[in-house]
Amino acid sequence: MAVRVIEVHESVFAEKDRIARETRHLLKAQGTFMVNLMASPGAGKTTTLLRTFNVLREEYSCGVMEADIDATVDADSMQAAGVRTIQVHTGGACAMDAVMTRDALQAFDTKDLDLLVLENVGNLVCPAEEDVGASCRVNILSVPEGDDKPLKYPLMFEVCDAVLINKIDAEAYFDFDRERAAANIRLRNPDAEIFFVSAKTGEGFDAWTDYLRGKIREWKSSAQVTGNEIT
Amino acid sequence: MAVRVIEVHESVFAEKDRIARETRHLLKAQGTFMVNLMASPGAGKTTTLLRTFNVLREEYSCGVMEADIDATVDADSMQAAGVRTIQVHTGGACAMDAVMTRDALQAFDTKDLDLLVLENVGNLVCPAEEDVGASCRVNILSVPEGDDKPLKYPLMFEVCDAVLINKIDAEAYFDFDRERAAANIRLRNPDAEIFFVSAKTGEGFDAWTDYLRGKIREWKSSAQVTGNEIT
Repeated sequence: MAVRVIEVHESVFAEKDRIARETRHLLKAQGTFMVNLMASPGAGKTTTLLRTFNVLREEYSCGVMEADIDATVDADSMQAAGVRTIQVHTGGACAMDAVMTRDALQAFDTKDLDLLVLENVGNLVCPAEEDVGASCRVNILSVPEGDDKPLKYPLMFEVCDAVLINKIDAEAYFDFDRERAAANIRLRNPDAEIFFVSAKTGEGFDAWTDYLRGKIREWKSSAQVTGNEIT
Repeated sequence: MAVRVIEVHESVFAEKDRIARETRHLLKAQGTFMVNLMASPGAGKTTTLLRTFNVLREEYSCGVMEADIDATVDADSMQAAGVRTIQVHTGGACAMDAVMTRDALQAFDTKDLDLLVLENVGNLVCPAEEDVGASCRVNILSVPEGDDKPLKYPLMFEVCDAVLINKIDAEAYFDFDRERAAANIRLRNPDAEIFFVSAKTGEGFDAWTDYLRGKIREWKSSAQVTGNEIT
């Protein structure tokens, strides 16, 4: 069999960085705040989003891009809840990258959105390595996963602006120490905002949605300053 | 900046397959049954292993290779429990491959082991793509992750010989349907053995460890047939 040769150039990475910057600029120009939401499979990304949109939908126009290897289960839940939704299949890739995100954005009408969430593939490794062009990166760590995860998946916690510690309603069932979890996150990222929440009961959502409101406000006001010029 | 070129040839994949076959042959020749244990972060791989070894250690000589991006928390727990352990750091890679596994095996004294477990990096995507040379592949899906995971991470469930559904002790807390989970697994893999277990309470471990006993017995008896010849 003939040997197939695939060449990977550093220019590909430079190109991805350029595309991510362009996406960020485009979204800022149209006043759309995009969250890159990452987590392990089953940490509660979809449930957290449904509740978040439920709180914020009166104030902001919201949309979601559901990235999965396969299936449309999350997109179906979002659509059923009345959230503007697009499903992205990654073709087996373990994370969205800048190119896939740009392509998804081109296929999705985002112009009037204030808040757009990219629900990334469930994975604590690969998504941390990609700058997709989001305004902010958020990771969900769920109580059943254990408080040691920041030690084992350091990059994910290093790159995040905020960490939601979810499923605190099930805390009695698991050996999870909030202070130890926070200390482990701080080891990786002293600046990360940490929120203890339950997407099931709504506990802790006031602080989390207030944080998002502040970020959206900041993003929109800086957009007015930079206008449409590419900076 | 000069463009750095990395060439990826199909021969690399062929080489990995060859190394995986060699590993399998070597382990068979020495009568060591190797499980490639995969799961999401926090599904309970380490707790499941500790209990499994606890049941089987009187009958079999057991060892574990702990693969992580960083940290030694799992290896420390294993060592403390008296299990022969080696820690493998993957240098950021999201899964063990055949080359890393061979190198780890060369650094680890496995000759007299009956049961060796590779606890892979917590991830439902990348580890499914690699044949490391194990005798059998097992995936743990935990109840808090949800019963829809086989739909979203199809390859992981396709390649597994067995699936442990763990944390059934916390079932009352989560919206998890055993029959739906089993049906979703069967969609991907009609032959997978499914075990409902709680690594915390020990429920379901008799069936799981009986399954392992049968697999180890089978492996050792086929080793006696093939002897040391490379087949």
